[in-house]
Formats: sequence, C-alpha cells, structure tokens
Amino acid sequence: MRQDVDVTPVWMMRQAGRYLPEYRKTRSKAGDFMSLCKSPELACEVTLQPLRRYAFDAAILFSDILTIPDAMGQGLFFETGEGPRFKKVIRTQSDVERLPVISAEKDLSYVMSAVSLIRKELNGSVPLIGFSGSPWTLATYMIEGGGSKDFHRAKAFMYNDRNAMHLLLDKLTDAVIDYLNAQIRAGAQAIQIFDTWGGILTTPGYFEFSLNYMKKIASSLIKEYDGAVIPVILFTKNGGQWLEKIADSAADAIGLDWTTEIGAARQRVGGVCALQGNMDPAILRTSPSVIRKEVGKILENFGEGNGHIFNLGHGITPEVDPDNVSAFVDAVHEISAQYHT
Amino acid sequence: MRQDVDVTPVWMMRQAGRYLPEYRKTRSKAGDFMSLCKSPELACEVTLQPLRRYAFDAAILFSDILTIPDAMGQGLFFETGEGPRFKKVIRTQSDVERLPVISAEKDLSYVMSAVSLIRKELNGSVPLIGFSGSPWTLATYMIEGGGSKDFHRAKAFMYNDRNAMHLLLDKLTDAVIDYLNAQIRAGAQAIQIFDTWGGILTTPGYFEFSLNYMKKIASSLIKEYDGAVIPVILFTKNGGQWLEKIADSAADAIGLDWTTEIGAARQRVGGVCALQGNMDPAILRTSPSVIRKEVGKILENFGEGNGHIFNLGHGITPEVDPDNVSAFVDAVHEISAQYHT
Repeated sequence: MRQDVDVTPVWMMRQAGRYLPEYRKTRSKAGDFMSLCKSPELACEVTLQPLRRYAFDAAILFSDILTIPDAMGQGLFFETGEGPRFKKVIRTQSDVERLPVISAEKDLSYVMSAVSLIRKELNGSVPLIGFSGSPWTLATYMIEGGGSKDFHRAKAFMYNDRNAMHLLLDKLTDAVIDYLNAQIRAGAQAIQIFDTWGGILTTPGYFEFSLNYMKKIASSLIKEYDGAVIPVILFTKNGGQWLEKIADSAADAIGLDWTTEIGAARQRVGGVCALQGNMDPAILRTSPSVIRKEVGKILENFGEGNGHIFNLGHGITPEVDPDNVSAFVDAVHEISAQYHT
Repeated sequence: MRQDVDVTPVWMMRQAGRYLPEYRKTRSKAGDFMSLCKSPELACEVTLQPLRRYAFDAAILFSDILTIPDAMGQGLFFETGEGPRFKKVIRTQSDVERLPVISAEKDLSYVMSAVSLIRKELNGSVPLIGFSGSPWTLATYMIEGGGSKDFHRAKAFMYNDRNAMHLLLDKLTDAVIDYLNAQIRAGAQAIQIFDTWGGILTTPGYFEFSLNYMKKIASSLIKEYDGAVIPVILFTKNGGQWLEKIADSAADAIGLDWTTEIGAARQRVGGVCALQGNMDPAILRTSPSVIRKEVGKILENFGEGNGHIFNLGHGITPEVDPDNVSAFVDAVHEISAQYHT
C-alpha cells in the first residue's frame, strides 16, 4: 500500500458498471443483475471491461455487497430502478437465531470461481481487489428488506434489542471473515470492506455496531498469501469524524468520501494508514477540464510522497460519459508524477 | 442562549407536523401544503398545536424552507409523497440573472402575518423561532427542481460555472437577510438557518458555497429588537467535521445532527457557541423507556451547566407515536435538572 511508486495509483469504486456500454450489453445478455453476479464468466468479463478502456491500477471483483445474506437464504432480488430487495426480512431475535451458518467456499462458490478466473485473466497485469459489505451495512439491508431513507427499522432494532443486534452482527462478522479469506485463497490480492451506512450512526453507535466488527474482520483476515501481503481498506461513507478510530483498527488503508480533505486526513492518520480517495463522483459529470482541475487539487492537497490510492469518494454513477473517466485516470497519472520524485 | 436555567430547554425540529393527528386534520382542511403555509391563521394554528400537548420551551414558525424561491416566481408545489418541486428550474447564468429581487414584507407578507399572529397568541409563554433555508440549500432545490439523491445538477452547476453559482448564492443571501430581518420585525425572537444540504459538499466547497453565505447572513441580522437579543442558530446536517469553522461565524448556537457527540462538540466549540441537539430522530420510534435512556446519555455527555438547547438531530418523522414525544420532552426536563444546580 505504501510502496514507492512513480505516479499515484488509481481505481474507481463501481468501475465495472452501468456507465459503460459494454457493461450494459453484458448485463442485458445475463438477464437480471444477480444472474450477472452468479455467472463467473460474465462477472469476469465485466470486471475486465474497464481495464480494457482505462489505465486503472487495480481490478475490483464485480459482485454485489449483499451476496452473504442471499447465501443465508434471505432471497436477494433487484427490481428495476428500485435497488436491492430481500424476500425475507429480519425483525426478531428468532429471525436472527434461524440464520444459517454458511460456508463461503460452498455457498458462494460462484464468487470464488469468478475471483480465480479474473485473477487468471489478469495474468499479473494489475492486482485484484476482493470485497464485502460491512456487517452493519449488511444488517441494515436485512432488517429493512432493502434500501431505506432513514433506516428506522434497523435503528429501532438496534435501540430496542441491542443483544439481538449484536447476535446478528456476530453472525455476519463470522460470515464476512470466512467469505473474505475464501476470496484471498481464490486469488484476491487486497480487500476492501464497504461500510456504506456506518455514517448514519451516532459516534458511540458507530464504534459499537460497525467499527468494532470491521476491526475484528481486519485482524482475522489472512495477512499474507502466496508470499504477498494482503492489504485491507476500510471505507465508511460519512466516516470523516472518526478517522483516528478507524486508523486504530488493523486496516492498512482508509477510504475517504469527498467531504473530508485528504491533506487534513493525512495529518490526522497518515502516519498509521494509507488513504484512498476522494473525488466527488459528481465531478465526473462535468467536463475533462473541470475533472483535471479537481484531480489536481486533491493531489496537491495530499502532497508529496506515497500512501495515496486515488479513487472517487463513492461509486461512479451510471450517467457518466466514459470519455470523462479517461480524463480522470489520465489526469491522476500525469499530474501525480511531480509528487513522486 | 446561555442564560441560567433550571432545566435544559427543549424543542423539536418539525414539531408542528404530520405525527400529530390535529396537524393532519388542519392540513386536510387547508387542502395542499402551500395553502397551509400561506394562511396565517392555519400556520398559526399548527405552530401552536404541539405547545398545547407538550412542555416545549420554544415555538417555531410553521412554514416551508422554500418560500423564498417560490416568491421569486419558481412555482413551488408538492406532490403527494414526492417532496417539494419547482415548476421552473435554474440551469444557466441567465436563469440566475432573471431572478427578481423580492421584498419579504411585500412578497412574503403571509409569513410575516403568521409570525405576528403566533407571537400574539403565544402571549409571552415561550419564545418564537423564525427560520430560513440556507442559500446553498435553497440553490440545490432551485437547480434540481426538487429534492435529489446525489444533487448532481446542483454540483455540476457549481463545478462548471462557479461565478453563476456565486451570483445565485449572492441573490439568495440578500433575500434571506431581508426575509429574516422581516421575521424579526414581525416578532421572531430567535432565528434558525437550516443548511440541510451543506453536508454533501467537500470541505472547501462547504466553506465557499455554504458557510460563507451563512456567515454573511448571521452578521447582517438585526442583533437586538424591542430590547431583546435575537440569537442565531446555524444547523448544517452532516456538518460535524466543520464545527470550529461554523463557530467562527457570527452564530450564537450550532445545531448538531446525531452523528457528533455533544460532549466532544462542547470541548471543540462550547466556549464560543451554545449547542443545540442532538438525539437521533429514529429513537422517537422506539419506546418511552428507550427514549428516556437515550435522552439521559446525551445530557450526561453534555455535562453540567448551560449552553445546551435539547433537540433532535433532524426533524421528527410522521410515523412517531405522539406519546413518545411526551416521554422525550419530560425526560429532558426531569433528567436535566441535576446538571443545573
């Protein structure tokens, strides 16, 4: 993560996605979204698509953050324009108790097959990042039955029955550890944990219900595989207030959303962790010249030296012009050279 | 704001609202939402309703944050379950240039009539808080034409044409100053500025496009009226990272959402500003015993002494049981007594 580099490395959250016409073509061939995730060949194909177009420095496994609850029998499905939904929801302690213990290698074998295949196809060109949703983020979807505006059901569950929530988070944490270690054994060379909804919690709530479990995961993952260190990136959207605590985990890098200045973040935690981020994805919907200017500001703000993986502060959105992504990647590589002398 | 009190004062953002059956009755009598806002008698009635039920320590004017753009001719309307919408949208510099300069006393006279009437009806029982949306927050709705998930149009406008955005924000700032001073002259005894969407900006973006304008407003308001000081509260949702900068404005109090610990906020800025907040509104959807416990935690976290106005971290939601609001208000008054000796 902090090795010497000539230019700042860059990848994009959701880089394999709907902004690419070739993705939309593969997706329509697959039928629904989960069929795309569950086909190792098609998941491999869409993972590689952005790398054919752009000089990204990493691939990220194409999959969904909700594969674990799906494998637990919750029945994940997608309705057009609606985001993820579950056929079953968690509402009581006995719902939590009934959740089965899964084996990632058996029950999520399609993910491991995709990882192996992608790794083989990449053939050493760039590293492959595996990922999972954080236990808290998975729990919110499982309790709500899908996305939510205010997550009141997940929060009521947490506030009303803290023990049941911890039981759920414990079960999910065990599953995430097993899942990510299986991804590492299948070929993932770095891991990112997506805590999309940690930022909706109070400060003590974030530590108790989200960060503690991510810490446990980060410290339970395979540290070295096949002779190489496996770095772990923790990304909590809206987690800017808590960087010191996040750095205090076993994570190697912290993903930043765009609301935190990366230079200030470096002062706060740069001695402990690398930083990943953090351009506002909305900037990709402007123009190459604006993109270049904004990329330059972030690089200048981070300053000289290593320990920065350039990325967006959240996933790229479907409406982005693919040419703007070229401008983004090229700007990072071109402008960053001066900071790596 | 920091006077000696026996118990911590409490009010609730959106305390006149849909969780109250009497509000829903008045609302259905009015017809649509804007008719309710535009009738001084009905706006007065719904402002007073929560005070008849609960021991709140302040009234807040019932109105909408988007009255200014409506008065500028943008055509505000509400579709059921859809939130606010505008008939006209701002997309170019000439759209901005065409926006008329309005006079709050003439063009928003219905608001001033409501303020005077409420003040008269309150008859000194509790102070009346007036309010406005922040210029940035108003601008996002005017550019998007309503609410948004990622505000990409507002952001593209800002990133692509910074001068046009500043022109819009300047015009809105002048209108907000005029509007709030008119509210003060009509009887508002404190002012809150709602910056609902400042937290979607980058750190420098927040300073440049939102906070600077709120500072200008805070320092341009009538400081004393009718022998009494008019305190100003700035509330930026997701502004926890920027409290020191917010405190640096002319504001008397900072509204906190629930993600920031109020005790830590007090250490950071308590010497400069009073603090308002900050219970997660989702807690109101649990039970009286959970509410009481969570109120107690916030009071303990703030600690001894004055300078705290209890509130939620965002508006109350329609689904809350009105009995839970009693539990909330009573818990604040009962538990806080021990911290005011």
